[in-house]
Amino acid sequence: MRILGIDPGLRNMGWGIIDSVGSRLSHVANGICHSKGSDDLALRLHDLHQQLTDVIHRYQPDHAAIEQTFVNKDAVATLKLGQARGIALLVPAQAGIEIGEYAPNKVKKTVVGVGHAEKHQVEHMVKLQLPGVQIAGADASDALAIAICHAHYAGASRGLDQALRRASA
Amino acid sequence: MRILGIDPGLRNMGWGIIDSVGSRLSHVANGICHSKGSDDLALRLHDLHQQLTDVIHRYQPDHAAIEQTFVNKDAVATLKLGQARGIALLVPAQAGIEIGEYAPNKVKKTVVGVGHAEKHQVEHMVKLQLPGVQIAGADASDALAIAICHAHYAGASRGLDQALRRASA
Repeated sequence: MRILGIDPGLRNMGWGIIDSVGSRLSHVANGICHSKGSDDLALRLHDLHQQLTDVIHRYQPDHAAIEQTFVNKDAVATLKLGQARGIALLVPAQAGIEIGEYAPNKVKKTVVGVGHAEKHQVEHMVKLQLPGVQIAGADASDALAIAICHAHYAGASRGLDQALRRASA
Repeated sequence: MRILGIDPGLRNMGWGIIDSVGSRLSHVANGICHSKGSDDLALRLHDLHQQLTDVIHRYQPDHAAIEQTFVNKDAVATLKLGQARGIALLVPAQAGIEIGEYAPNKVKKTVVGVGHAEKHQVEHMVKLQLPGVQIAGADASDALAIAICHAHYAGASRGLDQALRRASA
């Protein structure tokens, strides 16, 4: 199972791709899609759409995962993030890939073991779980953590499916 | 000049197309793109993207216009709207169409004459300015108002361009 994790943002949209075979994870690629703050908003969204579409075409993931967005008191920032997140959700849907959503605390708890981990702890654990990975930046690290979280839950539910099939056979 | 106005929303995304020749406006088409509340968010955004892309392919507008979003205290609603608005901005950009943004008060002031007009006043003035129009609903009426606003400002700046060219000739 190949998983694309996405950490949405308007200026920097992190992405990370891992392979999950049984309980084994391996790193495939990671990076950050950028848009220029000096460009019109529509053009920035178009740029992000193209870059993320290229990532899907190049690496052909079977699944995608994204964080449930933490909405805060800064409404302008929430709107900006929402617009970028719309693109992050659209691109996998256009490729026919289902996209799982996970609360930030669930991602941290799955990857680090506690729900309120710091960013550097997340990055540390991502590196431990994906030996040899070179991480393009903090947004890419978060995207890989989301992909690892999805591998855990999708793998667990798949294991459950198999157990149920065996039980009913 | 053919103008697409868009009133973004996740459940209902209004659109309206008008032709503007000199100071004359005429109605071309209007409608509402829908997404089902029971579907996954990514699928809903994908549905809106497809419907709005179809509108652009069918009517081939030269310009597009959208309201600057009023962000309010309801962060969850702002995030939802932001995601839909991301799609509304992306689709014209993908078609190579520039998209103008106008503050809600500016739209109302242009169409009705006052910045704090009620919805029914906007619809009334849209009908007066586009004789014979059948409006698909409140979101489509707002979209037509945004298109009328763009016709006014884009037309005015075009007139200014011509005046400047004449002055410098």
